[in-house]
Amino acid sequence: MVKAGIVGATGFTGEKIAEILWSHPEAELSYISAMVEKEEPFSEIFPRFKKKINTVCKNLDINQAVNLCEVVFLALPHTVSFKIAPAFLRQGKKVIDLSADYRLKDTAVYEKFYNTPHADKENLAKAVYGLPEFYRDEIRKADLIANPGCYPTASVLCLAPLLKEDVGQNVIIDAKTGITGAGRRPSLTFNFSNLSGNMFGYRLFSHQHLPEINDILTRVSGKTQEVIFTPHVIPVERGIFLTVYADLKKKMTKLQILDIYKKHYADKPFVRIFEKSLPNLKDVVETNFCDIGFEVSGNKLIIVAAIDNLLKGAGGQAVQNMNIMLGLEEELGLK
Amino acid sequence: MVKAGIVGATGFTGEKIAEILWSHPEAELSYISAMVEKEEPFSEIFPRFKKKINTVCKNLDINQAVNLCEVVFLALPHTVSFKIAPAFLRQGKKVIDLSADYRLKDTAVYEKFYNTPHADKENLAKAVYGLPEFYRDEIRKADLIANPGCYPTASVLCLAPLLKEDVGQNVIIDAKTGITGAGRRPSLTFNFSNLSGNMFGYRLFSHQHLPEINDILTRVSGKTQEVIFTPHVIPVERGIFLTVYADLKKKMTKLQILDIYKKHYADKPFVRIFEKSLPNLKDVVETNFCDIGFEVSGNKLIIVAAIDNLLKGAGGQAVQNMNIMLGLEEELGLK
Amino acid sequence: MVKAGIVGATGFTGEKIAEILWSHPEAELSYISAMVEKEEPFSEIFPRFKKKINTVCKNLDINQAVNLCEVVFLALPHTVSFKIAPAFLRQGKKVIDLSADYRLKDTAVYEKFYNTPHADKENLAKAVYGLPEFYRDEIRKADLIANPGCYPTASVLCLAPLLKEDVGQNVIIDAKTGITGAGRRPSLTFNFSNLSGNMFGYRLFSHQHLPEINDILTRVSGKTQEVIFTPHVIPVERGIFLTVYADLKKKMTKLQILDIYKKHYADKPFVRIFEKSLPNLKDVVETNFCDIGFEVSGNKLIIVAAIDNLLKGAGGQAVQNMNIMLGLEEELGLK
Amino acid sequence: MVKAGIVGATGFTGEKIAEILWSHPEAELSYISAMVEKEEPFSEIFPRFKKKINTVCKNLDINQAVNLCEVVFLALPHTVSFKIAPAFLRQGKKVIDLSADYRLKDTAVYEKFYNTPHADKENLAKAVYGLPEFYRDEIRKADLIANPGCYPTASVLCLAPLLKEDVGQNVIIDAKTGITGAGRRPSLTFNFSNLSGNMFGYRLFSHQHLPEINDILTRVSGKTQEVIFTPHVIPVERGIFLTVYADLKKKMTKLQILDIYKKHYADKPFVRIFEKSLPNLKDVVETNFCDIGFEVSGNKLIIVAAIDNLLKGAGGQAVQNMNIMLGLEEELGLK
Repeated sequence: MVKAGIVGATGFTGEKIAEILWSHPEAELSYISAMVEKEEPFSEIFPRFKKKINTVCKNLDINQAVNLCEVVFLALPHTVSFKIAPAFLRQGKKVIDLSADYRLKDTAVYEKFYNTPHADKENLAKAVYGLPEFYRDEIRKADLIANPGCYPTASVLCLAPLLKEDVGQNVIIDAKTGITGAGRRPSLTFNFSNLSGNMFGYRLFSHQHLPEINDILTRVSGKTQEVIFTPHVIPVERGIFLTVYADLKKKMTKLQILDIYKKHYADKPFVRIFEKSLPNLKDVVETNFCDIGFEVSGNKLIIVAAIDNLLKGAGGQAVQNMNIMLGLEEELGLK
Repeated sequence: MVKAGIVGATGFTGEKIAEILWSHPEAELSYISAMVEKEEPFSEIFPRFKKKINTVCKNLDINQAVNLCEVVFLALPHTVSFKIAPAFLRQGKKVIDLSADYRLKDTAVYEKFYNTPHADKENLAKAVYGLPEFYRDEIRKADLIANPGCYPTASVLCLAPLLKEDVGQNVIIDAKTGITGAGRRPSLTFNFSNLSGNMFGYRLFSHQHLPEINDILTRVSGKTQEVIFTPHVIPVERGIFLTVYADLKKKMTKLQILDIYKKHYADKPFVRIFEKSLPNLKDVVETNFCDIGFEVSGNKLIIVAAIDNLLKGAGGQAVQNMNIMLGLEEELGLK
Repeated sequence: MVKAGIVGATGFTGEKIAEILWSHPEAELSYISAMVEKEEPFSEIFPRFKKKINTVCKNLDINQAVNLCEVVFLALPHTVSFKIAPAFLRQGKKVIDLSADYRLKDTAVYEKFYNTPHADKENLAKAVYGLPEFYRDEIRKADLIANPGCYPTASVLCLAPLLKEDVGQNVIIDAKTGITGAGRRPSLTFNFSNLSGNMFGYRLFSHQHLPEINDILTRVSGKTQEVIFTPHVIPVERGIFLTVYADLKKKMTKLQILDIYKKHYADKPFVRIFEKSLPNLKDVVETNFCDIGFEVSGNKLIIVAAIDNLLKGAGGQAVQNMNIMLGLEEELGLK
Repeated sequence: MVKAGIVGATGFTGEKIAEILWSHPEAELSYISAMVEKEEPFSEIFPRFKKKINTVCKNLDINQAVNLCEVVFLALPHTVSFKIAPAFLRQGKKVIDLSADYRLKDTAVYEKFYNTPHADKENLAKAVYGLPEFYRDEIRKADLIANPGCYPTASVLCLAPLLKEDVGQNVIIDAKTGITGAGRRPSLTFNFSNLSGNMFGYRLFSHQHLPEINDILTRVSGKTQEVIFTPHVIPVERGIFLTVYADLKKKMTKLQILDIYKKHYADKPFVRIFEKSLPNLKDVVETNFCDIGFEVSGNKLIIVAAIDNLLKGAGGQAVQNMNIMLGLEEELGLK
């Protein structure tokens, strides 16, 4: 049994990782920490875990964590992770970081979008981007995983084959996300009375996930990519739904597009290609799948993709990465 | 045109009163105030009022308010109203208070449930409980209206005829409310991600509206009443839905019950008695109606009632009271 | 008082027109019909109209309707309207048709998208497209109004100034609609259990509103327009939200874009231009407004627009057209 | 591996059982049938099962089913099950029936509430009521399980200890259910546009689950019980929430009540007693738990209980019964 710990367990992502690890056949949830006023069983903080997770949730004590864990999930805010990760890495522990701190190799871009200097360039250089569909080999050997953002996960999965084959360009990503994407925090904007029956766009042309999307698409395709990315909030609890527009460089049929994607994802357990119908957001909720569908007209391609932002877009992918890093079967705990 | 002002215009209730007054044919929204960082047009604070309410929302200046208003709505938290109301009353202005501060004649009960001594017993003695279906004559002559709570409005309207006729007893009110009942404030509990797909009960046996319900039912029926009252939050934005259980003192048919209610509410424009079907919550949303339906079996009576918590349960009833106080037609601005 | 009738009053659109006319200060709801098993008061069919609309809803009798109405709203399915409208027009009645039957001048396109030959080409030639922001003068003199589709209304309002000024091209409309857009009909797809927490795209490249959008944009701009249009269903009851992408033909600032739109809509009561923030869907619900906002980056423009599909997208616009046709003030009944 | 089949797999309950069995470590989903126009993989009917359940869903062929299954789940409408079950029982197969057909021993009551004569009294006599918390020993030896209704499961679990100890009386159950409780069928009532923001009560004093509740409470407590039961629909997809009112026969503290329940459910894995807080509906969704909490005031007791209607209220309990019948660990597949 792998001993796995969570730092930041009371956010949506940390809570979800706890749930996955609790039912994971080869992992043991050996340590739970968060900033708490009172150290109490996780099931007191989240009554839905009664009769399930009785481990006490403590304030972080790195020495204790190091002793109790082989691998640690950092479900922390941006700019906090890079202050915590080094201590674990120094002790030879595997770290899977769910913040943005180790995702962008270019610290100037990081500093622009996250408004703070990067404090751990050493480990940043070694961090592996945890998108198993494209970096499985590197993940296998990594000590530090930069777990991808939710929007970048969906965006890269649905665009990389197209751009790698160099058949598409002029990409626009119209993205819709559920509320949990904003994290667990009190807010008038995310109050039920404001969101019920509502939707809105935000951070047009300037969302912090845009450089991550461009960066990974550029790396994966070997060609500079600059997409337009427009996020919206819709009144659902979970999930990301993308409608992606691209121009085809030459005329292609839907069948030819399908062939490209089926070839790229043939051996990838968590990508499902829709041949006849189009994905529904709900079909990926509570799963680690990314569903992808297509429609073609003339030289215009529309791609539709959906993931659960807390699973494939965060905690599920994190556990997928853990499985790969530790030589376990990739799907363990995620079915 | 009546000059009407609002103090506390950025809460749900104040905002709703602004909206009603804006379209009221005989009233003019002459003053809007709230605690704001920046004094700006109401339509900047609430973009939905663009091209509608451009009045600037100011921090409260009582002298200015007194000069600009004949009648003022206090949409303030409990324990704040009784510090503000006296200044308006001294200047001969009519005051409609939407807090609990002037509802309970017994200050000991007030102090127990609201945890603070009552600071304006003088005006409390003169305040009229603003439930027009039972106190229309007193309202006509009043200077200070204690506008009823949302739960008490629905509870009294659906129970008073039964208890006044002394045909029912052992009353249990199982109440369900939408989210706006909790006021506009950031909160994890009322975050969309927590409430979507959820419901829960709260303050069993101890809700602050319980003494108000018992008090008014006792006054209206002339007999001490003590009900059981259980509030719940359900995932809707607006509305209160009551399922009320009572024992009939003697065997009665549904038709006999209907007769009692139809007689009591014959000339009341905002009460609708359902003879064949039962009320749906949605049918009262965005209206000032209270819908009431019944089912009888043996000596057991179930009453179902619904109101919009922001209209008949707050701002709509407040404007209904204003109309009556000022000699206007009762339904003005509320159709 | 204008005597106005509704044919097809039990669909969402007909019901909404009934509600508007009921509170319209210069119109009287003189006739209500629909296909009903039992002719009964409208308030029996829709209990929310109790104490409001007690007119009996009858099965259509054209002679009776002709006698009782000066103007008639046809809230009927496509291919039904053009069988009914001629009888009213022959008797000199004004007709506002809410179906697609009189919107497309090119019957070949109509027949392709609605799968049926057009049966009333004579009146089609005379029908005026009821978008008052662009055809007010023609509407004033019209006998037959083709009331625009919900998607075309929002699409044309947010794109026409840009295309008329010939500063934008390569338009993509990513559209999101509430459930009422699908009409009142039993369906597994629109069951709460399927839609809650869900969203999906449909009819990519092939929605029946696409030719209407292209046709009107072409007419308004004087230049052939072909847009990409992708509709989605999101889990809200009411409203259409558009995110529109366009390339600017030359570099422009957001301020220059704003100037164009403010100039075009200066005297249009139901269009609101957002200068600082972006529209929220909810702010237009239960209003006849179209809200429009912008963001610019390089030569890329994003327009965000929102309407209530049942008001500005259907019944509200229909009454706006009635007001104009009959020489009434344009906003009557719509505030 | 146990070979298990489902008849009626395309309803909510059948679909849920398929999902549970698919991930059950000791069971194999060996047969899926439903009334289908086209026999195709289950993952074509429900795309969310892509890469999961590829078994073809067939129209029922009893011989084939008998050959492929050791145990069969009948997720069929009432009055259909008792025509199908006998064929399986004759061949020595274990049957778990999710309809009401084998729940009521008194066929006169069945016939009154389900409007049809009972067609299989022979097996009815042998059927065991599948509530493991009270009938585990009988279930272990049973060939035919009458899986309890959703409302009765929650009602009995939260009332049986009280009534068995004979400390409570005059019971009122105010029940709220999510939409899936109504089954998968097209309906205007359950359309998102009707249910969003809505709630209503139905079948007051006359719901078909009332005799089942009274019957089981009577059997479990050894004393005739007659409760009041009022079901409501609230706008959530999943779950049942009960607020139960009872009079205590003698004065008791909440602690004494808790002791009774903790004692009764000490070794029951799927009942969780809340000592400090009260259950939230959402905490049981996607679990097989029944959560129960209490509040006491004078001689009045309020019990709050919640289950997932598709799991503990249907498919989850059915699999729990299968586990017990076949000597497997009770919680298998249900964590």
